[in-house]
Amino acid sequence: MIYLDNAATTMIKPPCVVQAVTEALTSLGNASRGAHGGALDANRLLYRTRGKLAGLFGCPRPERVIFTGNSTEALNVAINGTIRSGDHVIATALEHNSVLRPLYRLRAQRGVELDFVPADWAGRVDYSDFERLVRPNTRAVICTHASNLTGNRLDVARIGEIAAAHGLLFILDASQTAGATPIDMARDGVSILCFTGHKAMMGPQGTGGLCVGGDVDIEPLKVGGTGVQSYLEEQPGEYPTRLEAGTLNGHGIAGLSAAADFIERTGIDAIHDREIGLARRFYEAVADVPGVRVYGDFSTWERCPIVALNLSDVDSALVCDALWRDYGIAARAGAHCAPLMHRALGTEAQGAVRFSFGYFNRADDADAASRAVREIAAGVRS
Amino acid sequence: MIYLDNAATTMIKPPCVVQAVTEALTSLGNASRGAHGGALDANRLLYRTRGKLAGLFGCPRPERVIFTGNSTEALNVAINGTIRSGDHVIATALEHNSVLRPLYRLRAQRGVELDFVPADWAGRVDYSDFERLVRPNTRAVICTHASNLTGNRLDVARIGEIAAAHGLLFILDASQTAGATPIDMARDGVSILCFTGHKAMMGPQGTGGLCVGGDVDIEPLKVGGTGVQSYLEEQPGEYPTRLEAGTLNGHGIAGLSAAADFIERTGIDAIHDREIGLARRFYEAVADVPGVRVYGDFSTWERCPIVALNLSDVDSALVCDALWRDYGIAARAGAHCAPLMHRALGTEAQGAVRFSFGYFNRADDADAASRAVREIAAGVRS
Repeated sequence: MIYLDNAATTMIKPPCVVQAVTEALTSLGNASRGAHGGALDANRLLYRTRGKLAGLFGCPRPERVIFTGNSTEALNVAINGTIRSGDHVIATALEHNSVLRPLYRLRAQRGVELDFVPADWAGRVDYSDFERLVRPNTRAVICTHASNLTGNRLDVARIGEIAAAHGLLFILDASQTAGATPIDMARDGVSILCFTGHKAMMGPQGTGGLCVGGDVDIEPLKVGGTGVQSYLEEQPGEYPTRLEAGTLNGHGIAGLSAAADFIERTGIDAIHDREIGLARRFYEAVADVPGVRVYGDFSTWERCPIVALNLSDVDSALVCDALWRDYGIAARAGAHCAPLMHRALGTEAQGAVRFSFGYFNRADDADAASRAVREIAAGVRS
Repeated sequence: MIYLDNAATTMIKPPCVVQAVTEALTSLGNASRGAHGGALDANRLLYRTRGKLAGLFGCPRPERVIFTGNSTEALNVAINGTIRSGDHVIATALEHNSVLRPLYRLRAQRGVELDFVPADWAGRVDYSDFERLVRPNTRAVICTHASNLTGNRLDVARIGEIAAAHGLLFILDASQTAGATPIDMARDGVSILCFTGHKAMMGPQGTGGLCVGGDVDIEPLKVGGTGVQSYLEEQPGEYPTRLEAGTLNGHGIAGLSAAADFIERTGIDAIHDREIGLARRFYEAVADVPGVRVYGDFSTWERCPIVALNLSDVDSALVCDALWRDYGIAARAGAHCAPLMHRALGTEAQGAVRFSFGYFNRADDADAASRAVREIAAGVRS
């Protein structure tokens, strides 16, 4: 299989990740629940990993690195836990349903008002729109770091400046970037960063979390056992306990910890350059093929290693099926949970075929994919 | 290490569980997100596992087996998603904070009324109290299958009958029993069963879920991407998608699936008998030791393999420290997230030392623990 669906999940993990999970599965107790070696080892693992992630993302305080099961959960915690009745929120047309659906639900349940910064035909935003949409009751800017459909990346520093100028919370969905794109919450004024462990971080599924900046207060989404302060009727107020009820995914977090080590050892810039190099190699080989339409802004390579395209007016699912059946290439068709982006690109019915590259892909993979696209496109024309 | 903290998490997993996770980490795509081999394999894994769990728990429909990160999340989903403003709920003094805190929060936020079936000095309930506490606005009985502190098990069939007679939802917290105690939702009238994967199921941390019976409707706790119906503004209404936003813990679920196979192969009765045999061996060796006070009802062995005790008036944490330091025995001290149970037992200040046995413990472990208890107790007396 030539796996080019890394934006959905990285299927190949660094060997150290697999080994760390395997070892944890035979040695780990339950963190914060007991004072024997197994429990303490689990506790130390969690705190070590919080520290590594705080370093990776520029989160000032390790105890404000909160673990969740995925970035959707992190976004639900961040959005539900900060946005109140009557607030106004600015998001963008690039958002994934993991941002949109929590916001739509708050609109229905709490009367929250929403505005979306539009995207043009290339999926680009105009940053002055963020300013333009600010109202007296605006509470937060919530946006993705990069479109999971086009790979276009937003300028976090610029949005952070606007948010800071207006005293807004800035919630960043780093699902597509965490692990392969430098992020610095403190420098860029990000209030809450939501990340997943199983994409560019190259960690296990079932991991992810949120990093909570400075003095942001978040109401918990779920409450329950914490192993501490058992006689309190409410969830304890301190981070990370405040937002972490129940037993964490210690085994997965052991893998995430190893993944963070792998990223540090390899260098996030080296990872980024390699992935982008592959995407660029593929893009340059297919962009001018007759019948191929590529979506997104390729005037800059400050982006994610994603190339989404269509062949004439062929349904994207048919193209993906041909890629898989005839070439063993795993790409992704359809809507990618990004409805507003498809509306902007005019691809609501057709969807798009997304190729997304990972650190463990090779140049051969990109070349096989571009050859396949050329052949399928030729077949469509004939 | 002699690990006797299996009620917190089973540290030793069947080798097939470790192997399944290891294999998944090198082969699994993202379920419901794509139609290539990696994604389809993940999808098949999820549906196969839903089927196995439905069989194990007597859940009529596999698609109503919902995965969550742990049983606390499952309980939050079940409780928040069904109990409405003005409802009355009956729970018990045996509950863990994973039930209590969601209920207390609903009392504060939605004016939900709560009553707790009391426990006597041995942690036993009087089943007529469930009947006695029913009011016109009672919506649900929510209770644990077994106390995580005493190991006392409640009679699910009896509570199910009462719930059915009054048209109440019956939400069962099977955190301490799933995997090592036969459960049959359909037979016993359980509306929603919440379970964890990392305790008696012997699966990885980061797994668990809820099984939703018949025609129960649950509002989702978190919403987001589902890989299907991307253009809907709301979370799709069908199970399991309705309650599963974001990428599931496929790697952990691969382990849970192997764990379910292990349980089926070994036989749940054989697992139960072995664990209970160890607990009984330990109990019989320590119950009459001078200075030892054991908590719970040992008139029946229809219980969980838990023995909680104290030595005279010594703080439970000191005893646990001695067990770990001097004997390499991992037990658990403190409140165990079960405040009402400690109130009933009169152990709020002292806590209790909990020994909990697992399938991979041996008779030697039980004997080493009882020897250690005798020695420490003798030291306390002298």
